[in-house]
Amino acid sequence: MRIGLLGPIAWRTPPRRYGPWEQVVSHLAEGLTRRGHEVTLFATADSETAARLVAVCPRPLGEDPRLDAKSYELLHMAEALRLAREEAFELLHNHFNAHPLAFSPLVDTPVVTTLHGSALLEPSTHLIYRRFAHLPYVSISNAERDGLPELRYVATVYNGVDLRQFTYSSRSEGYLAFLGRMSPKKGAHLAVELARRTGIPLKMAALIPPDERDFFEGEIRPHLDGRRIEYVGHLGPEERDRFLGGARALVHLCTVPEPFGLALVEAQACGTPVIGMDLGAVGEVVRHGETGYVVHTLEEAQQAARAIDRIDRAACRRWVESRFTVDRMVEEYERVYEAVLDASSARRSRSATASSSSRSGAV
Amino acid sequence: MRIGLLGPIAWRTPPRRYGPWEQVVSHLAEGLTRRGHEVTLFATADSETAARLVAVCPRPLGEDPRLDAKSYELLHMAEALRLAREEAFELLHNHFNAHPLAFSPLVDTPVVTTLHGSALLEPSTHLIYRRFAHLPYVSISNAERDGLPELRYVATVYNGVDLRQFTYSSRSEGYLAFLGRMSPKKGAHLAVELARRTGIPLKMAALIPPDERDFFEGEIRPHLDGRRIEYVGHLGPEERDRFLGGARALVHLCTVPEPFGLALVEAQACGTPVIGMDLGAVGEVVRHGETGYVVHTLEEAQQAARAIDRIDRAACRRWVESRFTVDRMVEEYERVYEAVLDASSARRSRSATASSSSRSGAV
Repeated sequence: MRIGLLGPIAWRTPPRRYGPWEQVVSHLAEGLTRRGHEVTLFATADSETAARLVAVCPRPLGEDPRLDAKSYELLHMAEALRLAREEAFELLHNHFNAHPLAFSPLVDTPVVTTLHGSALLEPSTHLIYRRFAHLPYVSISNAERDGLPELRYVATVYNGVDLRQFTYSSRSEGYLAFLGRMSPKKGAHLAVELARRTGIPLKMAALIPPDERDFFEGEIRPHLDGRRIEYVGHLGPEERDRFLGGARALVHLCTVPEPFGLALVEAQACGTPVIGMDLGAVGEVVRHGETGYVVHTLEEAQQAARAIDRIDRAACRRWVESRFTVDRMVEEYERVYEAVLDASSARRSRSATASSSSRSGAV
Repeated sequence: MRIGLLGPIAWRTPPRRYGPWEQVVSHLAEGLTRRGHEVTLFATADSETAARLVAVCPRPLGEDPRLDAKSYELLHMAEALRLAREEAFELLHNHFNAHPLAFSPLVDTPVVTTLHGSALLEPSTHLIYRRFAHLPYVSISNAERDGLPELRYVATVYNGVDLRQFTYSSRSEGYLAFLGRMSPKKGAHLAVELARRTGIPLKMAALIPPDERDFFEGEIRPHLDGRRIEYVGHLGPEERDRFLGGARALVHLCTVPEPFGLALVEAQACGTPVIGMDLGAVGEVVRHGETGYVVHTLEEAQQAARAIDRIDRAACRRWVESRFTVDRMVEEYERVYEAVLDASSARRSRSATASSSSRSGAV
């Protein structure tokens, strides 16, 4: 199949460190290429892929504030649409949020969009998504559909992780782990509070986004003592593997609905259970009582932390192996593509029949 | 001719008060329609036109900060491109700056762009304009080409004003006038300084943009005494006519190159000479010594103010009648459209010949 993958350009594909959308797109590009598809990946010029790489943007927008983000975003999506049209891609898979859809009427190529949580978390996307509600969408969890239930969902495809990047660790080093963006939305402050209340040490590994600097300085840094509560920086893939594998539990007390929670899967792949707030997809990604605890309050999180050693770390790994592998994700996307192409060729032949019968009717 | 006019959506077309791009687009839409062309105007839904109006954006973005500007801008330009393609417009005339050009490869319709000063004043537009330098461009003055000399300019078309909206006034009421955006770029502070140095009263009529609030409070308001130096608000068309007609001179001591300067023409249409800084198009729009003075320093502006009554007000009006009418502007744009269509059909027939001869060569 000749497929275009329109990826994000905030980070490299695959990301050097943070970049969950880019990580999923990378796995998909490599997996589809491995399975014999002819894949064109639209990403930053420094990206690495076995697929054909087409790049307008020289570097990740997240790494170089001198790049005019708005212009590069437009040129990037326009290039994907142009090639989809000129080279007659069978399908364009959009991982670049709502904006490209505004221009989808300009190409005949079917466009399928993976939401990656955008409809759930970014109300500014709703205007465009609603206008193009008839296009096919993939949600990355059932929960994320709550953001815009009216879209035409063709599947939920859970994100997959590369099990080789996450080493199973049968025993922990005893600390709680926080991983992800340093943000109240991800519950960084609640992780600190849980550590204070239970006395269990906490290690925090996180990107600090510029707009969360004040939050970090005001709510997190005062509690860092380098011993009980520690910030270990923003980790690359290998450090992350060790960091997650050594944890007694990953703490994810998010305060807004979680569209998927890649870090939760990564932790479980290392054998580390999750203490997660029951918001969004957390209850889909964590099996309550089997691979962690899905809680509703900080008090329940305290109970969960006390009970965490009852969770069988091997069960966490098995759960990921059964549901969240890259291979399964790639296969499910293949089925999505086939369904979208079947539906679009059925529509085309229906409209061809309709127009030929209306022509013959007019004779 | 079947023409699409892609106008801006910051303000209504025509603008209720401020909005020079929208004003020019409105004149062009009405003028082309009057001359029998089939015009589709893409503008805000509250716009008024004799052309066919196609609107995605319900209200001007400048009037309603709750509208998601980025989404509406994309939907607006996408709609113009979609209709240009589906209804086979002969030509799309872009007045919406650089972004639509990113998507021009997705349509076969020739796209001609009027710069309206953007390339001169907004470096962030350069990335896209440079990538599409081969497309046809219209500058609104010769001076504005300095912003990006490498573009393919097909004409300079000066903006036109509707002479009925500007009443000739053979004598002034003695004050200096400042009209436009309250900004150091437009020399608002230098107009104040000129009034202070010469003792001639100054009336200022201007939109105060949110990002110039501090400038206004710090540099202008302290000088307002309601008598010698006065701020009279942001004027609608009728008030503007009286305001300009009553002035002894319009003061336009801009500090950045002026791509055209619509207010300068409007003032002269009322018979009011201009004291303008020699930056950008000021020397093209004002005839030094005949319809005002084109100066280089504040000292020269003082001399000009002392000499201003030597300028024949009737000559100012005549200058506008000879060079800056809507009719002339519309006729010049018609010639641009014809040239662009000739060039594009020549290109098409050349490439058809080339491909048929290469085919026969291969046989």
